[in-house]
Amino acid sequence: MTTKKNILIGQSGGPTAVINASLCGIVKEGLKHKDCFGEIYGMINGIEGFLSDHYMNLSQDLSEEELQLLAYTPAAYLGSCRFKLPEDFTSPIYVTLFEKLQALNIGVFFYIGGNDSMDTASKLSRYAAAHKIDICFLGIPKTIDNDLVLTDHTPGYGSAAKYVASTVREIVLDSSVYQQKSVTIIELMGRHAGWLTAASVLARKHALDNPVLIYLPEVPFSLEQFKRDIEAAFTRQNNLIICVSEGIQDAKGHFLCEYTNSSQVDNFGHKMLTGCGKILENYVKEQFHVKVRSVELNVCQRCSGMMASQTDIDEAMLAGSFGVLAAMEGKTGCMISFERDADVPYQMHCSTQDVNQICNREKCIPSSWICESGNDLTEDFLRYVTPLIQGEAQRVMENGLPKYLYRK
Amino acid sequence: MTTKKNILIGQSGGPTAVINASLCGIVKEGLKHKDCFGEIYGMINGIEGFLSDHYMNLSQDLSEEELQLLAYTPAAYLGSCRFKLPEDFTSPIYVTLFEKLQALNIGVFFYIGGNDSMDTASKLSRYAAAHKIDICFLGIPKTIDNDLVLTDHTPGYGSAAKYVASTVREIVLDSSVYQQKSVTIIELMGRHAGWLTAASVLARKHALDNPVLIYLPEVPFSLEQFKRDIEAAFTRQNNLIICVSEGIQDAKGHFLCEYTNSSQVDNFGHKMLTGCGKILENYVKEQFHVKVRSVELNVCQRCSGMMASQTDIDEAMLAGSFGVLAAMEGKTGCMISFERDADVPYQMHCSTQDVNQICNREKCIPSSWICESGNDLTEDFLRYVTPLIQGEAQRVMENGLPKYLYRK
Repeated sequence: MTTKKNILIGQSGGPTAVINASLCGIVKEGLKHKDCFGEIYGMINGIEGFLSDHYMNLSQDLSEEELQLLAYTPAAYLGSCRFKLPEDFTSPIYVTLFEKLQALNIGVFFYIGGNDSMDTASKLSRYAAAHKIDICFLGIPKTIDNDLVLTDHTPGYGSAAKYVASTVREIVLDSSVYQQKSVTIIELMGRHAGWLTAASVLARKHALDNPVLIYLPEVPFSLEQFKRDIEAAFTRQNNLIICVSEGIQDAKGHFLCEYTNSSQVDNFGHKMLTGCGKILENYVKEQFHVKVRSVELNVCQRCSGMMASQTDIDEAMLAGSFGVLAAMEGKTGCMISFERDADVPYQMHCSTQDVNQICNREKCIPSSWICESGNDLTEDFLRYVTPLIQGEAQRVMENGLPKYLYRK
Repeated sequence: MTTKKNILIGQSGGPTAVINASLCGIVKEGLKHKDCFGEIYGMINGIEGFLSDHYMNLSQDLSEEELQLLAYTPAAYLGSCRFKLPEDFTSPIYVTLFEKLQALNIGVFFYIGGNDSMDTASKLSRYAAAHKIDICFLGIPKTIDNDLVLTDHTPGYGSAAKYVASTVREIVLDSSVYQQKSVTIIELMGRHAGWLTAASVLARKHALDNPVLIYLPEVPFSLEQFKRDIEAAFTRQNNLIICVSEGIQDAKGHFLCEYTNSSQVDNFGHKMLTGCGKILENYVKEQFHVKVRSVELNVCQRCSGMMASQTDIDEAMLAGSFGVLAAMEGKTGCMISFERDADVPYQMHCSTQDVNQICNREKCIPSSWICESGNDLTEDFLRYVTPLIQGEAQRVMENGLPKYLYRK
């Protein structure tokens, strides 16, 4: 009689609203197959914590009720890390890591994360293959940036997009109460890919509605064109709301947020880093002499459990449970990916893709989805993004505030 | 037979999540008393718009369904203004204004707003009394700052406090995923009164939980003490979340956000204004060499309809409907105020207060509710604030996003 192999799960990279839903999906599906798997462990703080023997037993320590709450808890229940495995497979770190995996009798290793986490899954699966070690390495995608290739979209994006669109719609209301001319600049996350900024288009209720201008990192940014765009918009309305990606850059590839004067220091002699929203706020003030405000949505974009998309949560759980089924088929070196069957009514299914083809690549918005003006999105993008924000996540409240699950 | 007098309502100052609930309360109560009142008009953009004959008929133009949606719509449905009436009652503006009021056969004038709006109600009621003009002027309080005197609290504060506490709790989750030492500084609204920043204490789940330090404008801020506070907190935990009011100032009364170097200009030669969160971010980086981030919640604090407190919405509506009843009793020169009967179970009732005693004064947090350390709140404050954030506002959604009411 062979001992059943155990499952090990890690979370890595920046948190999202639904990374715990994927964790929950793996645990729930794993528990259904007690004939195949032994314990289900979770690494505390990813690979980095695991190397220091920090892990917990998820199959033993979580009640049914806690598992349910886990699915609706944002951030990363297990803790995260930013730890890149060395390129050199002769590094002793691999020996240490695989000794620990074998000591825990791990048969399946799940890493939930973005690009860098897929790099980890890629390296570990290749190392295992080279050394004929029988452990499946699977990646579960997660990133609000939606920039992973070979998948229709990534878990985490739908909730962040819903948060951005809802919040922009509320800021539009707030910014439109005065009759005086004003410009409100909303800075959104996305250093290289504009998916999240693009989602602000959903806030519009009709054509020409706010946000009137949307600037993405995919389109070279020009201050002169920006000024002309604002002039044109002011001929139609008094209150302009403009959404910009933190990563907008000029034709030479310089980030706008690098446009500050080098003499910009605080009283302690430290250089102050300024986001592109603040830079544009100052530019518009100078050029137009109107009321200008910039708002940076910051981490709230990725950690709002209260505005999560139920579709996103369901799909994140599905990615986890599908991962367990893939492992049972012996799949390794794969990432679980989403394939879209139809926009209306929306239909998708999971598949697996070679993780080596995914890591260290980046998916930007196709240029055919960006209007010729460079400051707006097409109907095709709307058709793509709309299904992903549908459904309101259940809100579990306690004394007027969100109740989430915390590691003991 | 005398013609029935009409009602006129204006909204003024910064928007909140529930200023429209008060508007809804007035309209609904007004419609119940058709024997007393004729039409119910709304000024578009407050006094400023009304002086240009911008107003609408609320009793005719809003359906029952629209009125319901109005109660859950943030910002200011009628539009707002920042317009201070002159101190000099011989100014021709008063003659113009009262001519317009009399032309519209106005019997009751409601102004929903904060400190400045109460100043408007005060002046208009005094002018009317001096000229024996039979119009009731009533103020309905509204401010997320909670800084009006002679009322237990103000409509708008509960929802903003709920948003702050929920969001801080989510940022705490987000900021705690890595094991490395980090400091996250959350800058909250409140230039002179720290009520909103104080509400972040609600995010704590137990003693010593994040946010570990809370700085209010009521307590003189010292960078040296701030540094010692952080050192002490780091002896207990790795991830520190610190909430600061935008209005923190040193013992000499200098705002911290004025601590930037005068040479701080952008590439266009413009002075950059920096919030105190950013200033402290740089200070902590320099002093502690750890990961530091600052987050400014900005206007989202006041315009989030999705996180509104149902208690706040109910009370805002109540303030409006009570105002109509007060007008029927002939009250004028009054603000509707809230009196608390009990904390647990929470019970309050409305009353009226002399608006002249309210305008141009400011209510800060009592010093007995601030811990001796100056960086925390007492149990008394918790007892005060907890009832105000209870209940989740109904969410009316449309295609995955909030559905709000807009003026046609």
